[in-house]
Amino acid sequence: MSVRNKVAVIGAGVIPFGELYDKGYEEMVSEAYLNCLESVDKGIDPKEIEAMWYGTIGGPSTGASLGEWLGLFGIPCTHVENACATGSDAFRNACNAVAAGLYDVALVVAAEKMTDVAGGLIAAVGRGPQYFWDYAITMPSAFGLYATRHMHEFGTERKHFAMVAVKNHYYGAMNPYSHIKREITVDTVLKSPMVSWPLSLYDCCPITDGAAATIVVKEELARKYTDAPVYVLGSGLAIQPVTLHMRKDFTTMMPSVWAGRQAYKMAGLEPKDVDFAELHDCFTSTELITYEDLGFCKKGGGAKFIENQEPYIGGKTPCNISGGLKSHGHPVGATGNAQIVELFWQLRNEVKPDKRQVPNAKIGLQHNIGGDGPQVSCVNILSNKKR
Amino acid sequence: MSVRNKVAVIGAGVIPFGELYDKGYEEMVSEAYLNCLESVDKGIDPKEIEAMWYGTIGGPSTGASLGEWLGLFGIPCTHVENACATGSDAFRNACNAVAAGLYDVALVVAAEKMTDVAGGLIAAVGRGPQYFWDYAITMPSAFGLYATRHMHEFGTERKHFAMVAVKNHYYGAMNPYSHIKREITVDTVLKSPMVSWPLSLYDCCPITDGAAATIVVKEELARKYTDAPVYVLGSGLAIQPVTLHMRKDFTTMMPSVWAGRQAYKMAGLEPKDVDFAELHDCFTSTELITYEDLGFCKKGGGAKFIENQEPYIGGKTPCNISGGLKSHGHPVGATGNAQIVELFWQLRNEVKPDKRQVPNAKIGLQHNIGGDGPQVSCVNILSNKKR
Repeated sequence: MSVRNKVAVIGAGVIPFGELYDKGYEEMVSEAYLNCLESVDKGIDPKEIEAMWYGTIGGPSTGASLGEWLGLFGIPCTHVENACATGSDAFRNACNAVAAGLYDVALVVAAEKMTDVAGGLIAAVGRGPQYFWDYAITMPSAFGLYATRHMHEFGTERKHFAMVAVKNHYYGAMNPYSHIKREITVDTVLKSPMVSWPLSLYDCCPITDGAAATIVVKEELARKYTDAPVYVLGSGLAIQPVTLHMRKDFTTMMPSVWAGRQAYKMAGLEPKDVDFAELHDCFTSTELITYEDLGFCKKGGGAKFIENQEPYIGGKTPCNISGGLKSHGHPVGATGNAQIVELFWQLRNEVKPDKRQVPNAKIGLQHNIGGDGPQVSCVNILSNKKR
Repeated sequence: MSVRNKVAVIGAGVIPFGELYDKGYEEMVSEAYLNCLESVDKGIDPKEIEAMWYGTIGGPSTGASLGEWLGLFGIPCTHVENACATGSDAFRNACNAVAAGLYDVALVVAAEKMTDVAGGLIAAVGRGPQYFWDYAITMPSAFGLYATRHMHEFGTERKHFAMVAVKNHYYGAMNPYSHIKREITVDTVLKSPMVSWPLSLYDCCPITDGAAATIVVKEELARKYTDAPVYVLGSGLAIQPVTLHMRKDFTTMMPSVWAGRQAYKMAGLEPKDVDFAELHDCFTSTELITYEDLGFCKKGGGAKFIENQEPYIGGKTPCNISGGLKSHGHPVGATGNAQIVELFWQLRNEVKPDKRQVPNAKIGLQHNIGGDGPQVSCVNILSNKKR
């Protein structure tokens, strides 16, 4: 049993990401929710929403204040937190409940304030097991361990990581919802200040505020709301040990491999069937390693994959055509649900400008990792047809 | 569709609650997990656990460090947070996924460090909407508003709230897992220092560390693990506005009413069918109001209900025979799942001493509220038979 073909996305909305000093959680979620409602082609009465899942790390503990702003009372709201996989896991739990037949229509909202609120960032980095932080392993240094090992084993160079940033800024610059709308060069990255070897400032995603909303329904009801529903084919989630000496390989992020396998199996698909993907480029090296971990290229082939422009439109598997975390932005708890929004748009062939639309996109994959190094990964696979 | 009769609890364990200065999240969860595994009558191989839900407010953002201690890698772990309804909502989401057929066997762990870690408490009280806290409405004062209104409308007196404390300490003193194992009198409560009128120190639950673990399986598999499975009949979850002027009635906690209705409807039961209940007595007044909100007595009848000892064993609906949050303790994120453990024991007729066993218990209800006033409520109904 699975969620495959049982759940459809019928609406999706985000807000422009950025440093949103004038907006709190409630304001951001309300705006994303209204955009989401407006995206439902044949309209939806908010009263039809039977349940809510809410993803955040630093936001309110319950969804009550959000429900208050959205006018949704008396219904269930579950708050999911799972480091940077928060938004995608909130989506996954909503799909599980719809697949179980508990609700016909469920709303997923996800949001994060990162800039002018200490809570978001502190929650993200400060709540791991004490013994990990005792060694001063921060996010850039934890991911740097993987980057250096990949360089050592496979001859990957800093320029390859930089190429990931160049691609994501290229597409992100066209996306009206992006946080950092400017193109960069390999040189921009290589000459930017070093954060944690080999990751320089432009290898790191920015600190971003944002929110995203999606509506999932029982698939039998999808065409009541739209002639172009997007179906959930598969999902996966997996944890690995936090302690570094319990991990065997620093060129592979095992949670991505495991979550990917679960999702591919549920969807009955292989990596080659994926037409495009939104990947978790918290650092450029992470995206490059993920090409391999999700099977878009062979182990050790990540550098060649980006060098040959395979993750560009026109290449083998276009990746992060939204701009990714790197340019679109990374409001931690919101990111995964925002990636689902991008999949929804791409699979409905409605992305503007046309240059950013993946031609003939039929199957899209969304991927997050979370925690240092990482601890967890979530993968969802969506399609514009049941399969 | 619902979870009714589709999901069974086959194992459950807690640790002795208290001020556990020598234990962190990982230690507490490991101990609860081992107790849970040992409770599975016919044994279970940890490899059979396919997915995990984890409830906490102040604990690690992902379940990775817990998975590391429990030896569970590569499987999904969703972290649910929902104020004081965290543990019960984690249980609910696990049941949803098992009911959907996604997993045959799922583990629910829930834990909270409250004493020597700032995070737990700060997270619990400091992450509500800013405008609420600007008025300095803390937990005791938010719940005090309901208590005073109930006194005004129905003539309820402080002594009635005190009677709730007396009952819960009476039973809690017999429970080897309780935090505060001593009996008290109405006078103890009335003469204890005032915290926020009309709630004095002994009207408030303590600050407690603790953890609880349960295992839920697809009902068809239940008898592989035990001859005495406990079935999930219904569940409900509901939010209400945080802002006080948006609430119409301060003698009723609407989330409890709504979540209760959802659970009763799913279970096909009425309040009179409930043989015993674990209620959210964060404050004594909350338990008294909940008698009414869940239909154990009529509106305004809470004072009479406790005065007549109806929530004692031998009365109409025994409530908080574990000792409740008041005596057993309230490690915020863990509490709901620990209440499920108590239901499991009572429904299997295995509570010691015998004086604490509800005779002939067939249907048990578990109830949490969360957030100030409250914002949310979760209700689960369990039985030792499918119905």
